[in-house]
Amino acid sequence: MKGEPINLAEKLAGFSEHWSPRVVAEMNDVQFKLVKLQGEFVWHDHKETDEAFIVLRGEMEVGFRDRTARVGAGEMLVVPRGVEHVTRAAEECQALVIEPRGVKNTGDAGGKLTAANDRWV
Amino acid sequence: MKGEPINLAEKLAGFSEHWSPRVVAEMNDVQFKLVKLQGEFVWHDHKETDEAFIVLRGEMEVGFRDRTARVGAGEMLVVPRGVEHVTRAAEECQALVIEPRGVKNTGDAGGKLTAANDRWV
Repeated sequence: MKGEPINLAEKLAGFSEHWSPRVVAEMNDVQFKLVKLQGEFVWHDHKETDEAFIVLRGEMEVGFRDRTARVGAGEMLVVPRGVEHVTRAAEECQALVIEPRGVKNTGDAGGKLTAANDRWV
Repeated sequence: MKGEPINLAEKLAGFSEHWSPRVVAEMNDVQFKLVKLQGEFVWHDHKETDEAFIVLRGEMEVGFRDRTARVGAGEMLVVPRGVEHVTRAAEECQALVIEPRGVKNTGDAGGKLTAANDRWV
């Protein structure tokens, strides 16, 4: 709830599924979503928006077509709009995703990893 | 730079002034700004926007007219638009502020703690 402290570790303890973002807060039309990553996601892009990741625990890779970025705890990375990318994590990584409300996690790629939007934890 | 990892601790080591937000990233028109808080800020509100804080180190208070919220490392809080608030920290607190580009840190209150916008670190 706006105006109240939100403990991210407590919220992370509230779900275990990988690739299943959970909203914890909103700032205007922007959502803050916790996500647990493990394994490899699907290649996709978001035509309409940038997408920010802040890694809270562990390490993730953001693969681009020409290179791979490694993002560890205490680091962040912004994927530019329209740029194809894939996220990966050898071991479970916990991150905060910040992007406008309504963004589909798999972009136009779709598939079985497509998650429901607006699931709060 | 978009698409590159940003190490928040390294960026925090790049400045020491309190109440002087430094931009480290942008997601669309939203800025991620590091700030070091110590002492008490000024009462103010932002008529046009919510304002999100993620505490990285230490603890801060967000005072509202009817209560005070304490926000520690690993916690976040969203101040609703138009709601008067004041931030405080007995000891230095390091936080990430997330809000649209162009928001004045002191809102309409102004005064000597008003910081320049768009200072990157």
